[in-house]
Amino acid sequence: MSEARSPDNGLLVVYTGQGKGKTTAALGAVFRALGRGLAVAVVQFIKGKWKTGERTFAESLPQLTFLVMGRGFTWESDDLSRDRQAAVAAWQEAARLIAAGQHQLIVLDELTYVVNYGFVPLAEITAALTARPAHVHVVITGRNAPAALLDLADTVTDMVKVKHPFDDGRKAAIGLDY
Amino acid sequence: MSEARSPDNGLLVVYTGQGKGKTTAALGAVFRALGRGLAVAVVQFIKGKWKTGERTFAESLPQLTFLVMGRGFTWESDDLSRDRQAAVAAWQEAARLIAAGQHQLIVLDELTYVVNYGFVPLAEITAALTARPAHVHVVITGRNAPAALLDLADTVTDMVKVKHPFDDGRKAAIGLDY
Repeated sequence: MSEARSPDNGLLVVYTGQGKGKTTAALGAVFRALGRGLAVAVVQFIKGKWKTGERTFAESLPQLTFLVMGRGFTWESDDLSRDRQAAVAAWQEAARLIAAGQHQLIVLDELTYVVNYGFVPLAEITAALTARPAHVHVVITGRNAPAALLDLADTVTDMVKVKHPFDDGRKAAIGLDY
Repeated sequence: MSEARSPDNGLLVVYTGQGKGKTTAALGAVFRALGRGLAVAVVQFIKGKWKTGERTFAESLPQLTFLVMGRGFTWESDDLSRDRQAAVAAWQEAARLIAAGQHQLIVLDELTYVVNYGFVPLAEITAALTARPAHVHVVITGRNAPAALLDLADTVTDMVKVKHPFDDGRKAAIGLDY
């Protein structure tokens, strides 16, 4: 059973939409929380193959637990059964972190894809979020967040793409986009 | 004269809109850039009086220049002439950083307020951005970004408020909201 939730309890924040900034905002929340001395965990559900700037930086910070799926879901992948296995394993680890309550902020980056591809049942995710220890903030990112997740959230921002440089054929910029 | 701009050049990113996540996304960009070893400068145009989590954290990082208006514009302020002076001084320092080209990423947090309150002419800001060294990425945040800024930007995300916990009378959460 979860503790009763009160106005001082941890928030559930969802950054969704087609625009840029969802993962970036989640990383900003990490930065802010670390500045306050909170223990932070990040689970990246998609970008496991990327040696991203944030990962490099995170690995230098002792207060931060940074989990990336060992292999797993990528846009290039052609083996859905292995993606499903990896997604389920990552979710199980995330659920364990959420329930343990040792981190005051847990970021579930690109979690919506795990739901939208049917790799993990939505009900299992909402149950874990609802039952989490009261002090735990959770930030979830990803396009097309399902309605049940939005209903559960305290804060929802829809990041709307107004203009995007890749529309003009520009490459992603190292240090800014990844 | 600025160098000619090419697809490899620094991007101008604008995070605007009424939703939460604008400053947070800018801080995430800082985090990512630091992970890539880039030199980063942040100028905060509003939150100078706040001992925010990100500031505390930033002060521990040598690659990061973090400037906060010494006093200056806040929502509680009742002395616009001092606010104007502080905004102009902060902008002059920001313009100097942009022109110097020593930082590969410069964040101008809440810059739009400086424009929208008429403290600094928009044309002066767009001129500084247009003339910047070609390798410099700039991220600008704030509500109601003026059209001339959006026209100049490579990436624009409108952060739309879907749900906000303060609507329900919840307090801002330390380490998450500030």
